[in-house]
Amino acid sequence: MRVTIIGGAGGMGRWFANFFRDSGADVLIVDKSVQTGKIAAEIGVKHLELDILRSNQNRNLEMEMVVDTDVLLLSVPIDITGRVIERVGPGMRQGSLMMDITSVKKKPVEMMTRFTPEGVEILGTHPLFGPSAKSMRGQTVIFVPQRVRMRSGSMYSRVYELFKRSGARIEILTAEEHDRVMSVLQGLTHFVLIASGITLKELEFDIERARAFMSPMYEILMDFVGRILHQDPRLYALIQQNLEMEEVHKTFLSVATRLYEQISASDIEGFIAEMRNARAHFGNTETERAMRDSDAVIEAKIEMEQKRSAGRSVP
Amino acid sequence: MRVTIIGGAGGMGRWFANFFRDSGADVLIVDKSVQTGKIAAEIGVKHLELDILRSNQNRNLEMEMVVDTDVLLLSVPIDITGRVIERVGPGMRQGSLMMDITSVKKKPVEMMTRFTPEGVEILGTHPLFGPSAKSMRGQTVIFVPQRVRMRSGSMYSRVYELFKRSGARIEILTAEEHDRVMSVLQGLTHFVLIASGITLKELEFDIERARAFMSPMYEILMDFVGRILHQDPRLYALIQQNLEMEEVHKTFLSVATRLYEQISASDIEGFIAEMRNARAHFGNTETERAMRDSDAVIEAKIEMEQKRSAGRSVP
Repeated sequence: MRVTIIGGAGGMGRWFANFFRDSGADVLIVDKSVQTGKIAAEIGVKHLELDILRSNQNRNLEMEMVVDTDVLLLSVPIDITGRVIERVGPGMRQGSLMMDITSVKKKPVEMMTRFTPEGVEILGTHPLFGPSAKSMRGQTVIFVPQRVRMRSGSMYSRVYELFKRSGARIEILTAEEHDRVMSVLQGLTHFVLIASGITLKELEFDIERARAFMSPMYEILMDFVGRILHQDPRLYALIQQNLEMEEVHKTFLSVATRLYEQISASDIEGFIAEMRNARAHFGNTETERAMRDSDAVIEAKIEMEQKRSAGRSVP
Repeated sequence: MRVTIIGGAGGMGRWFANFFRDSGADVLIVDKSVQTGKIAAEIGVKHLELDILRSNQNRNLEMEMVVDTDVLLLSVPIDITGRVIERVGPGMRQGSLMMDITSVKKKPVEMMTRFTPEGVEILGTHPLFGPSAKSMRGQTVIFVPQRVRMRSGSMYSRVYELFKRSGARIEILTAEEHDRVMSVLQGLTHFVLIASGITLKELEFDIERARAFMSPMYEILMDFVGRILHQDPRLYALIQQNLEMEEVHKTFLSVATRLYEQISASDIEGFIAEMRNARAHFGNTETERAMRDSDAVIEAKIEMEQKRSAGRSVP
């Protein structure tokens, strides 16, 4: 299988270059970065230093190299994904597969379907992990397939099998379902973690000193805040913008404002009623499971810290 | 050591009854619950079914039994802690120790100091864990000591040593420091998790179905939301009310509103600048650590899920 990765010098691009190379594929990374050659050499794949959006007719040969492949994976920021698709889509080969890995699916899947010939398979993909994941084992990957052929040997079947074999939990959704679920799971989660991080800054809260007073649960949460702040802010901004977050944002803000007002007015019973209703919506099975599973995570965190301090005391 | 636990039939009361019994102490649980005798028998400690707030002069003998002890631990809801202290504090013995375990420290420590004789040691205590903790190992416990005697053999020293030996991470703070740090660590954290849970209800979001699309990080976060909703809502309402949350709530709401407005106005650069400033406040060491530590937690979660599915496929 020949795999070409546009944006192959970036974090996720490199991750997938490694992943496909490990599976025995013939990998080519395409990137405008001047580091492309060096990165390709490190991974052990072929490379092409090329800015897809700036390439012109004189560079037809290079564009030919890009589309002459079995799987074309787009690993570029959401805000330029559309333009890249417009540029490379029309030249793609019959029987080949185009996949993107952005965090939204409606727009890119629509674009990929529109700008590629009928015989090209389309696989909107959303890997729910970042470049720091050690492998695909246990990670969730959402597939939004369009015009795919289910028969064995089709590129879609081969990619599906490869991901499955690598331990991914594959979930198949429509683009609309994906974006609706993600506006809550990812959009709301990022939003509250980012807002919390900025709040800590505004309160001039000393995070390092507070470490000593954090129980494992607070440490885990604080690390999730730090984790998001550590990564590319543009990616998070674009996810918020592209996921149609309006309703989610508004609902969250109105709930948070209401809770604040209840506490200010010492309306303890009102606050309790809100919590009870939310619990009823979760259901007892779900909150009991949450209790049990979060206890296990907290125990694991304690285990890690114990090992770490043991390591420190015996140098 | 004789230990008396007021509210000993409740979740944390039972936890500490077990804890002190395991350490060889002579434990008495005092509770108004009709289950008190049964619970005491299960744990293997003595009991007294008594409602402290309703006891009167005719029951002097019972009140004598309550204060005739070395360590008097109050494990009652924040909103009645003050009244219980007023009732039992004056009768306490010289050289004995009174400790509470509420999540706020200014009010209870002030009350305990005021309503007990000079010779009584005071230990405001905040165990940063709940009744589901398996042991004290690796858990953080904050101590706010007042009028304590540091010499060996004093009740304070013995409690300190016992907690230390049991693996607790003990942190000593003033009541003011405690409440300030906790208004952020605990107050803000609870607030955003509770607001998130209520938002999920208002959006009629199907949590059980969404499980399939959650990466480990979202699963952990969703479980933290469910975990809080599963517990006593009054406790969480009272923590919000007693921690002087005004500034924290207002700051968070204004940050969240600002972020929402930026996304609505497609002010991507503004959103990015906010994230960058917050990251700078955390500092690179801190966000790098957050990245590394959260990766480890996520890996542990994946490990657990793998074991669970393995268990399912091989019944």
